Amino acid sequence: MSKMLSLSETVAWLKKNDNFLILTHRRPDGDALGSAGALAQGLREFGKTAYVYFNPEATPRYACFVEDYIAPDDYATGNIIAVDTASADLLPKNAAIYQDSVSLCIDHHTSNMMYAERLCLNADRASCGEIIFEILMMISGSISSVSAECLYVALSTDTGCFSFGNTTANTLYVASLLVEAGAPNKELNKKLFRTKTHERVSLEGMLICGLEYSFDGKVAIASITLDMLAASGAGEDDMDDIAAIPGSIEGVCIGITIRELSSAQDCKVSVRTRAPYDAQVICSHFGGGGHSQASGFVAEKTIDEIKAELMEVLSEWDNRNR
Amino acid sequence: MSKMLSLSETVAWLKKNDNFLILTHRRPDGDALGSAGALAQGLREFGKTAYVYFNPEATPRYACFVEDYIAPDDYATGNIIAVDTASADLLPKNAAIYQDSVSLCIDHHTSNMMYAERLCLNADRASCGEIIFEILMMISGSISSVSAECLYVALSTDTGCFSFGNTTANTLYVASLLVEAGAPNKELNKKLFRTKTHERVSLEGMLICGLEYSFDGKVAIASITLDMLAASGAGEDDMDDIAAIPGSIEGVCIGITIRELSSAQDCKVSVRTRAPYDAQVICSHFGGGGHSQASGFVAEKTIDEIKAELMEVLSEWDNRNR
Repeated sequence: MSKMLSLSETVAWLKKNDNFLILTHRRPDGDALGSAGALAQGLREFGKTAYVYFNPEATPRYACFVEDYIAPDDYATGNIIAVDTASADLLPKNAAIYQDSVSLCIDHHTSNMMYAERLCLNADRASCGEIIFEILMMISGSISSVSAECLYVALSTDTGCFSFGNTTANTLYVASLLVEAGAPNKELNKKLFRTKTHERVSLEGMLICGLEYSFDGKVAIASITLDMLAASGAGEDDMDDIAAIPGSIEGVCIGITIRELSSAQDCKVSVRTRAPYDAQVICSHFGGGGHSQASGFVAEKTIDEIKAELMEVLSEWDNRNR
Repeated sequence: MSKMLSLSETVAWLKKNDNFLILTHRRPDGDALGSAGALAQGLREFGKTAYVYFNPEATPRYACFVEDYIAPDDYATGNIIAVDTASADLLPKNAAIYQDSVSLCIDHHTSNMMYAERLCLNADRASCGEIIFEILMMISGSISSVSAECLYVALSTDTGCFSFGNTTANTLYVASLLVEAGAPNKELNKKLFRTKTHERVSLEGMLICGLEYSFDGKVAIASITLDMLAASGAGEDDMDDIAAIPGSIEGVCIGITIRELSSAQDCKVSVRTRAPYDAQVICSHFGGGGHSQASGFVAEKTIDEIKAELMEVLSEWDNRNR
């Protein structure tokens, strides 16, 4: 069990201590790496020694925001801080050595497992970056343009550029202060939200042209074949959130994306639903699972076989709901 | 020539007068109709009589934000206000009778033609809604949830949910106050930015599948034919920001969208560029204009004729830059 710290207690602890090492979670996103970079930068500006622990799963998209702070191999760690990380299980493998010695966790997930000695948690915040912002403001009364850029990445990526349902008045207010402090929002938005690879766009075009609607437009199924991947040149990096497309169409309650993996007999299926339709219930028929609005399964079957089985399951559901 | 009014002079004029009729521009967008609705609502809350003039080109997507304020046929107009309308030519046909008698124009376009008797202009604002916000705050010191909803529509649609390059710290700050005042940003974002109609998705698929790249992928041209519109069923409401697609592809510096309007001999061309490429320079060859990164023109030519002429203009540009 963690000791819960208020913002001012957190700030007092940071001021009293030194030699920080900041951890991020597996498959780190913009909020994790942006928060880590901003905290390291802000602590250094305050005269502290602070580094970010290398995360082997960081992708080029966000790794650039921590690259100036990566701890050298011989860094004599004093105090371990984890940001945006709800559970010790979520730490990358190379950080497992620290899982029982995290001094402070700064987080915004209600699901936080209280694995750290101290926990500064605010589950009302859309991003961990908003909490880091408050901490840095309390430490020094201002935000440098370098920290502001990292925090803008944190806020904007966790809220889909302020479009997701988690965006609050506070998110927008902090974002305005970050832009005021010099965060280059125009350039960041262009890179993070308004640019797609040639390959991704090409694949999206094929996917959309092949969309199949059923049950009066309530169900939309997209297929991604190995042929489509070859023709578009799209790879794993181009797949980010592609399964959201069928479910984002007006009137569609159940959006399904079936993708061939290593062969036509090896498929990954993603199901997205709007409440009250339950993606987890649909996927449980195929041995899969996930969340109520986003679930998935894998099957050693062809796209056509999976579609036929899905139609059976969905017909039962449709009959029950008529 | 208009008399330029400061915000406080504008507020003084609004307080002194009454019986307002608010005009919007042709093909009214979220900023025009959101600004008009918010201003009518705010003036009414302050005890004034205020109506919005019916705009026959308003689409269901945004018409709902002014429907409570539409002027009855027998309304005895006192003072005409135009919002977000840079030129009298941009008024819809049914408003032509008022083009020489606009008492006040509230606008954020540098290109304002100063056709109104008085002009309250702030070209630093991303949306006209931000200026309306300041006016309403100065009039009554607060914003009702009804006005806040209209203004959120104005700000968010003119900035692509705060992702476009025109988004400033002020835009985000005002947005935070609007959400605080009760603008239902979660529901509005879902409707305006995270849901696409069946018809839009279908049109996007065709557009993407027909994309033509040239100049080593630096130029991408999309065509929207009347046949594609018929096949997809897409209408005016489905066109929002569609011209951004070619320019959003990685490596593309000049994204061009050519759309057939009433016939194959009547096309609208939108050009989006990344700096330093100048969309305005390209469009000036065809008698068009706009902004340096987003311009357009219309031409009584076929898509193929326009493409051929564009290729000539771009070849000259390419030769100069080699």
